[in-house]
Amino acid sequence: MKDHLKIVMIGAGRVATNLAREFVSQGLDVAEVWSHSRESAEGLAEQLRASVPDDTYDCRALWDNFEQVCCDADLYIVAVKDAVLSDVVQSLHDGRENALMVHTAGSMSTSVFTDIGHSRCGVFYPMQTFSKERAVDFTRVHLFIEATQRGDEILLNELACLLTRNVGFVHSSTPALRRRLHLAAVFACNFLNHCCTISTDILESAGLDFSALLPLVDETVAKLHVLPAREAQTGPAVRGDDNVIGMHLAMLTGRRDLQKIYSLLTKSIQDYDKL
Amino acid sequence: MKDHLKIVMIGAGRVATNLAREFVSQGLDVAEVWSHSRESAEGLAEQLRASVPDDTYDCRALWDNFEQVCCDADLYIVAVKDAVLSDVVQSLHDGRENALMVHTAGSMSTSVFTDIGHSRCGVFYPMQTFSKERAVDFTRVHLFIEATQRGDEILLNELACLLTRNVGFVHSSTPALRRRLHLAAVFACNFLNHCCTISTDILESAGLDFSALLPLVDETVAKLHVLPAREAQTGPAVRGDDNVIGMHLAMLTGRRDLQKIYSLLTKSIQDYDKL
Repeated sequence: MKDHLKIVMIGAGRVATNLAREFVSQGLDVAEVWSHSRESAEGLAEQLRASVPDDTYDCRALWDNFEQVCCDADLYIVAVKDAVLSDVVQSLHDGRENALMVHTAGSMSTSVFTDIGHSRCGVFYPMQTFSKERAVDFTRVHLFIEATQRGDEILLNELACLLTRNVGFVHSSTPALRRRLHLAAVFACNFLNHCCTISTDILESAGLDFSALLPLVDETVAKLHVLPAREAQTGPAVRGDDNVIGMHLAMLTGRRDLQKIYSLLTKSIQDYDKL
Repeated sequence: MKDHLKIVMIGAGRVATNLAREFVSQGLDVAEVWSHSRESAEGLAEQLRASVPDDTYDCRALWDNFEQVCCDADLYIVAVKDAVLSDVVQSLHDGRENALMVHTAGSMSTSVFTDIGHSRCGVFYPMQTFSKERAVDFTRVHLFIEATQRGDEILLNELACLLTRNVGFVHSSTPALRRRLHLAAVFACNFLNHCCTISTDILESAGLDFSALLPLVDETVAKLHVLPAREAQTGPAVRGDDNVIGMHLAMLTGRRDLQKIYSLLTKSIQDYDKL
């Protein structure tokens, strides 16, 4: 990797914040942070500056339009909501036609760049759930990268390897692979989390706290490290305890939404068990 | 607690195995293990004997009917499948009419005992998912106990406190509370695990391995220790990324079962987000 890599972070949300913090902690130069919100841009830039004790590092905060964003960065990382990604890329392209730009979205292809004629592009997708409040251990994160040009793929790989040894390539011939990873992640992260939201709701309506269930949740996930999920399954659905299932559905009377989810997941557990 | 507590374990499945191992490791006398399967009974009894290096401890394996089961134990723990619990309790009752008997099922009430006129009874419910292969850290398990008689409640509490500091009482006036805990646990354990079964299926159909998602799953659960699940939610549903949601549903073409689960959970995430 070239000695001084100048990176511009477009976005100051959860993914942008975590990536930028990690890059700076690895000694890389995140020279500018742009956000549509001035407060977010200044907050992240200040956080990055504060994380480096000496004054060899500076970071500019930029917002609103892209006029002030430098045109000579080695890498523009666009970490914004999927819904506005196309608009942001279109604006950023003007005046930076030959710059390397990547997005961080597991579900989007490189066509958001190539469709507007931006050819040096790629994806830098950390398959992880981020919060601004929690520092993620990047050495355990799986990073999936993709680039339209071979030289850029090498640069992204070197960058990714600074963060983790779990780097996966997704070549342009197999963009469906990354989308499939993202779909699987929706089940294993978002839907898994939602099961806990519902569980919390059921407990709180009886004045109980979800913390009582945390050891159970921890053990359930610890088992996934040593057993396939299907083999690890326990509970009334896989045991075929129809009386318990009926009682649970009766307890959810008045919550048609939860009854439907309970029935559908119970049936699915039983269908998978028969395979 | 009286000096020498004689315990009989009825059942040799996952719950029985983990409880018996923990009792013996705490120096308690699990004098007999009964199972409908001779192999299971002998396997667990042998395992318990082997776990105590000196010969001050013995454990008898019993199977088939209950004729050989002693009548003078201080506590009979019935840890069998919910579906056969009533039958087992009925058989065990004969000749042991005044013995203390408890079951370990989160979803069942003490009426399985009282309905047949067995009055000294209760529940000893460890809210955890058990495997025979993995030793569970009992100090983190939440145990919920219940007894029809005050003296027995004290004994069960002392026993539970040997295993964990997380002991909850469920008085007979609030049996609905334990059932509600169990229902919440189905969501936070069984349904959570099933989300990972589906995720594994989606990955494997593309030649990918679920291990790539484990850091994501671990982080998702680590966040639950510091944030309510609803606030921790990320992903296309809560962001309202309709284009990604549509793409995911299209990717699940031919899997009507998974499309239904995806749609229902996505809608539920969005409904909870609006609350």
